[in-house]
Amino acid sequence: MQSKFIETLGYADVAQEKQITPWEVQGELTDTDYQKVAREFGAKIIDPELTEMIRSAAGEVHPYITNGTFFAHRDLDMLLSDYRSGKRFYLYTGRGPSGKMHLGHLIPFIFTKWLQDRFGADLLIQITDDEKFLFRDLEMEDIRKYTEENILDILSLGFRPENTHIIVDSEQAGILYNQAIRVARHINVSLARDVFGFSDSDNVGKFFFTSMQAVPAFLIPALTGRDERCLIPYAIDQDPHFLVARDVLPKIGYRKPSSIISKFMPALKGSGKMSSSDPNSGIYLDDDPKTVRKKMMKYAFSGGRATAEEQRKFGAVPEIDFAYNIYKLLEPDQGKVRKVYEEYRRGALLSGEMKQIATDKINEFLEELRARREEVRSEVDAYRFSIDKVMR
Amino acid sequence: MQSKFIETLGYADVAQEKQITPWEVQGELTDTDYQKVAREFGAKIIDPELTEMIRSAAGEVHPYITNGTFFAHRDLDMLLSDYRSGKRFYLYTGRGPSGKMHLGHLIPFIFTKWLQDRFGADLLIQITDDEKFLFRDLEMEDIRKYTEENILDILSLGFRPENTHIIVDSEQAGILYNQAIRVARHINVSLARDVFGFSDSDNVGKFFFTSMQAVPAFLIPALTGRDERCLIPYAIDQDPHFLVARDVLPKIGYRKPSSIISKFMPALKGSGKMSSSDPNSGIYLDDDPKTVRKKMMKYAFSGGRATAEEQRKFGAVPEIDFAYNIYKLLEPDQGKVRKVYEEYRRGALLSGEMKQIATDKINEFLEELRARREEVRSEVDAYRFSIDKVMR
Repeated sequence: MQSKFIETLGYADVAQEKQITPWEVQGELTDTDYQKVAREFGAKIIDPELTEMIRSAAGEVHPYITNGTFFAHRDLDMLLSDYRSGKRFYLYTGRGPSGKMHLGHLIPFIFTKWLQDRFGADLLIQITDDEKFLFRDLEMEDIRKYTEENILDILSLGFRPENTHIIVDSEQAGILYNQAIRVARHINVSLARDVFGFSDSDNVGKFFFTSMQAVPAFLIPALTGRDERCLIPYAIDQDPHFLVARDVLPKIGYRKPSSIISKFMPALKGSGKMSSSDPNSGIYLDDDPKTVRKKMMKYAFSGGRATAEEQRKFGAVPEIDFAYNIYKLLEPDQGKVRKVYEEYRRGALLSGEMKQIATDKINEFLEELRARREEVRSEVDAYRFSIDKVMR
Repeated sequence: MQSKFIETLGYADVAQEKQITPWEVQGELTDTDYQKVAREFGAKIIDPELTEMIRSAAGEVHPYITNGTFFAHRDLDMLLSDYRSGKRFYLYTGRGPSGKMHLGHLIPFIFTKWLQDRFGADLLIQITDDEKFLFRDLEMEDIRKYTEENILDILSLGFRPENTHIIVDSEQAGILYNQAIRVARHINVSLARDVFGFSDSDNVGKFFFTSMQAVPAFLIPALTGRDERCLIPYAIDQDPHFLVARDVLPKIGYRKPSSIISKFMPALKGSGKMSSSDPNSGIYLDDDPKTVRKKMMKYAFSGGRATAEEQRKFGAVPEIDFAYNIYKLLEPDQGKVRKVYEEYRRGALLSGEMKQIATDKINEFLEELRARREEVRSEVDAYRFSIDKVMR
């Protein structure tokens, strides 16, 4: 039955073809690819009707939805319709602390913060230090260092302490493991292998880990008894984890989590995800303005033409241009974004100018972030998960 | 390399032939079988030299060693020689709380208590409620009930509270999981499948579990930094778990645990282990004197002859007689045991008389146990594991 589940979703095939697993992404996806992958995974594309439902519930629609960054979902319509009839839901997202954070890592958190603010929702942020220990050749002390730094980075965005619950797996391992074995009973080795592409030489912790990652998707109901749905914003490469969670949770008495799914974040060099292993593959949150400028000028993949002359004549392809794409994600004023798009598209802006605009935006964003980062440093404990805090 | 480890020990073959896994034992083993299995698993038989080493260190030798109940070991000689030069060791044993306890379950604890008393050793008792949840069709609330009852049963034997640390996996899941992932990194799915006979349709929690069971074998050094060896008394069917532990622990900076290995406990009906699933397969600790008598008379496998006349003429085979075997384990006076053996062997005792002697001994033992059980009920917390307590 479980292998039928996989067949039905065509998961294994697509994952193989596109090499999408939660740990590795290769090749570049077009919009059509994204839609195909989402459909084959059994997710739905966010259509204008659902967009209007979001607007009506949230009072506005975040640009990441209108510009297609978050483009697919599972059961978001059901969650919103419950919300309209007065039922609360909570949010769950996470971070694997295997290195310093890039801009790309932070984008989904910007969106999550919007969801928290608009819906007054509790937010669980799972920091999967155990995952990184099991999957990477890293020692726990390094992972711990990244954990503390990454938490500061995330909190710099301004989450609400009273509604935000940071779960560091190693700190809450007891609560998580006790719930995870309930999930693990329903995941066999075949399933884990098929979904995640593991082999028999992979360690048993990797096979078990998806159970740990499933826990926050039912932790609030499990601990509090409150019948709250869970909404998980994530990039599409994390979908396998939550497909498994959706399969298992009803078997142990909980609702399937809803999800809102993003494309991969723009990559500085134009392809793949930003990678922690290549320092020039993305812009770190602690890159100083000069470094940001240098990376942008030297590495940022451009959708502009080879020469200024050609650019003036034919215009750029903003869709594949890192500078434009990151600007689009960091500039809240959609009027400005549209203007830049049109000018760049028709060649009124040169590639270097586009990079300049984006560089300024990035540096402005990072500067604000770093200022708030110092403020939040002494307040981290207020954001940590505890049973007492979620019971309130 | 890991599959070579298995090959070297010939583990998979023997396990297959004898169907010995930690969860299932079939067929009856002769003394020769035991020795063969132990040797093929890479364990050593306890010889007279080692027995003298034990006597010299402990001041006496427990009858379970002289009568061959505990018959094999790994690195016990090294541990004793360290002990003689002033180095402490600690003990680790456990119980899977999937049902009420039989007499047979308690025997290894009697021996462990002797070790604790004689060597003044700390003792970790792991109660693997998570294992039972992952391996059996039991719900957590049932397992919790058995956990509390089983702990009382074990403590009734009179362990020292200051040196005894009961670790209920679900209560200490955080500490255990954080250590278990260090083990899990070194156990791949192939190894777990080969050693335990799992299949791909087994759940991922089963594959992970052996990592949890390995933790107490290095928990004292891991938490306290004290360089103490660990001695694990167990029945031979648990050997696979600790073979894996011995393979992995040096890779994460700890010593291989030593072990002292017993045969299976005598089975009321004469074959296999006593089983929790058949109420008449063994004598429960809460069986009243009348029930014990009935079970002994009706079910106890006899090594006596078919008729009183034949018995008087040919004598019994005490080695395969449940009544004799359990009497041997419960009667501390070895002079009495030898006398009974000889009389029964040559036919001076009839089968019914042997059963009567054993029944009286069992009832005497159970009565004392139940009296202490009530005394210990209010003191259970004094025996629970805590980091503070092991640090002392």
